[in-house]
Amino acid sequence: MQNEFRLIEKIKNMFAPLVTGDLQGIGDDCAVIPSPGGESLVVTTDMLIEDVHFLRTSTSAFELGGKALAVNLSDIAAMGARPVASFLSLGLPAGLGEDWCDDFMEGYRDMSLRYSTPLLGGDTTSSPEKIVINVAVIGRAAPENIKLRSGAKPGQKICVTGVLGDSATGLKLLQQSARQHVLIQRHNNPLPHLEAGLELGKIPGVGAMTDVSDGIASDLLHILQASGVAAEIELSALPLSPEMRQACAENGWDAAEIAVSGGEDYVLLFTADADSCAGYDVIGEITEGEPAITWKMRGVKTNARYEGFSHKI
Amino acid sequence: MQNEFRLIEKIKNMFAPLVTGDLQGIGDDCAVIPSPGGESLVVTTDMLIEDVHFLRTSTSAFELGGKALAVNLSDIAAMGARPVASFLSLGLPAGLGEDWCDDFMEGYRDMSLRYSTPLLGGDTTSSPEKIVINVAVIGRAAPENIKLRSGAKPGQKICVTGVLGDSATGLKLLQQSARQHVLIQRHNNPLPHLEAGLELGKIPGVGAMTDVSDGIASDLLHILQASGVAAEIELSALPLSPEMRQACAENGWDAAEIAVSGGEDYVLLFTADADSCAGYDVIGEITEGEPAITWKMRGVKTNARYEGFSHKI
Repeated sequence: MQNEFRLIEKIKNMFAPLVTGDLQGIGDDCAVIPSPGGESLVVTTDMLIEDVHFLRTSTSAFELGGKALAVNLSDIAAMGARPVASFLSLGLPAGLGEDWCDDFMEGYRDMSLRYSTPLLGGDTTSSPEKIVINVAVIGRAAPENIKLRSGAKPGQKICVTGVLGDSATGLKLLQQSARQHVLIQRHNNPLPHLEAGLELGKIPGVGAMTDVSDGIASDLLHILQASGVAAEIELSALPLSPEMRQACAENGWDAAEIAVSGGEDYVLLFTADADSCAGYDVIGEITEGEPAITWKMRGVKTNARYEGFSHKI
Repeated sequence: MQNEFRLIEKIKNMFAPLVTGDLQGIGDDCAVIPSPGGESLVVTTDMLIEDVHFLRTSTSAFELGGKALAVNLSDIAAMGARPVASFLSLGLPAGLGEDWCDDFMEGYRDMSLRYSTPLLGGDTTSSPEKIVINVAVIGRAAPENIKLRSGAKPGQKICVTGVLGDSATGLKLLQQSARQHVLIQRHNNPLPHLEAGLELGKIPGVGAMTDVSDGIASDLLHILQASGVAAEIELSALPLSPEMRQACAENGWDAAEIAVSGGEDYVLLFTADADSCAGYDVIGEITEGEPAITWKMRGVKTNARYEGFSHKI
C-alpha cells in the first residue's frame, strides 16, 4: 500500500532524465508537447474501475459513458486548451450484456457531440470480473495560452468557475441509499468547464489553473506546491448551491468541509490578478510562504485541517 | 458476448459523423491527426488485464513493464512513424506490494530509454483484484510517410520484417509449464520494429502496413478488407526461426499454423512493389478479388482455413 501521490512522485523522478526540451511531463492536469511553429498538444488520461470509481447499481451506463469522457475534458479545460480527439479502452466482463455496452457508448457519444470531440481509437478486451474504462484525450492550445499549476504569484486572487460540494453531497446521499435527487444527478453528470477554460487561457493576468477533482483542499495545495507559495481561503466566500446547503442542513453535515474536501466538482480553480477575476467567485488570496492553506471564517483564522480526497492504492 | 471486431465496427459507425476533415479514426494501427503545416500525429492505446493478457506467475513484472510499452510502440512503427511520448494508467490491487510496482516501472523505463520515448503522464488507482494496465503512445510522421492498411494494390508483394510464430510457440511452451526457453524469452520480451517502420515509411513503393499482433491470418485480412483486394500466401516462404521449427517438431505442432494464427509476433507486415522489398522476406502476393487469403504450399493451393487470434468479450 502506498499513497497515490507518493507513487506518482517516484515515477516522475524515475523518468525525469527522459523529459527534455520544452516537454511538460507528470504533475499537471495534462502533459504539454510543443509543436514547432504551431499550437502545443496537451494530453490527459484517466482510468475508472468498477467498485473503486463507480458502482454498477448507482450510476447508469449512459451516465458513466458521459462522465468517463467529461472528467478528461475537464483536465483539457484546466490547461486553457480545447479538445481534439479522445481514445477509449474498455475491459468488459463476460456477463455484462450488449445493452450495458450500447448505453455506455450512447452516453459517451452524447458527451463527444456536446464538446465536438471525435472518438478516434481505443481498445476493447474482456475482463475477468470488473468493468475497466480508460480514456485519453488530446487537446490543443496556443503555447502562450496554456496555464500550468506553477503560475500562482503572491497577491493574486483565488477563484472558482462554479459551485463546490454539489457532487460530494450527491455521493453522500447515494451512500444513504437515496436514488432521486438533483445533487445525485449532478454527481453522475459532471460537465467540463471548457468555455471558461478557453476564456481564462486568453487572459494574461490569470496565473495558475487546475480543475477541482479531489476537493480544493487537495487541488489548491498542488498549485501552491508547484508555485512555491501559500494561500488563505475565506470559507464564507465558497460558492455553494441552495440545494447543497439544504441537504447539509437536513443531514447535519458540515457544508464547508464537504465543499473543500469532497471532490469531483470539475469546476476550474485558478489564480489571477484582481482585475482579471471579473465574473468569477473569489474565494481567497495567494500569499508568500511555505505551501499550505490557511482557512478563515469571516476574516478570522480557524483551526480547520481539511484534507482532499486521497486515493489509497 | 460479442466479438471484439464486431463491437469495434459498431462503435466506428456510431462515431463516424464526428470524424471529419483529414482525421483518420478507428480501424488502423493508429489514429491519424493532421497538424496544419507540420507532421501528423499518430495515436494508439492498448489495455492489458491480468488473467486475460498475462499471468502474474509466468511474466515477470519487469518483462511486463517493457512489453506493455513495446506493443504500443509496435503500432507506431506500423504507421511509419516515430514515438514522441507515452502515457501509462495503472490499476493496482491492494496486496500487490511495492516491489512488483517498482520492477514493472523499471521494465517500462528500460523500454522507454531504448526507444527514446518519455513517459509524460498517466493515472494510478487501486483495483479490486486484477492488475490493469493501459498505455497510450503518441507519435509523429510526415503525412506522406504514413502507411495505412488501405494501401495494398494487386501485384504488390507481401513481406514481413522478421520471423513468425516464435512468440506463439513460446506461449504454448509456457502453457506446458515450461519456464526456461529462448522462445518464452521472446514471447515475454517483444521489441517493436521501429527502425524498419521508419525506413519503410519513406519508400513510396510500400503500400499497406500493419503489425502482426493476432497472426497474419487475421492481420493480413484487415489489410485486404481495408484495401478491397485478395492475397496468396506461400507457406513454405514463411520465415521461421530454427528454435521454433525444433520446438514444433519435438511437440508435434503444425509450425505453419502457429506461424500464421499465433499472434504477438510484433513484426511488421507490409505490401510493396517488387523493387521495394529488398532485404525483407517475401511471403506472398496481393491479387484482385474479394478480401480472402489463399494459402499455398510450394505453389499448390491448400485447403487450410487458418484463423487469427480473436478476442472474445
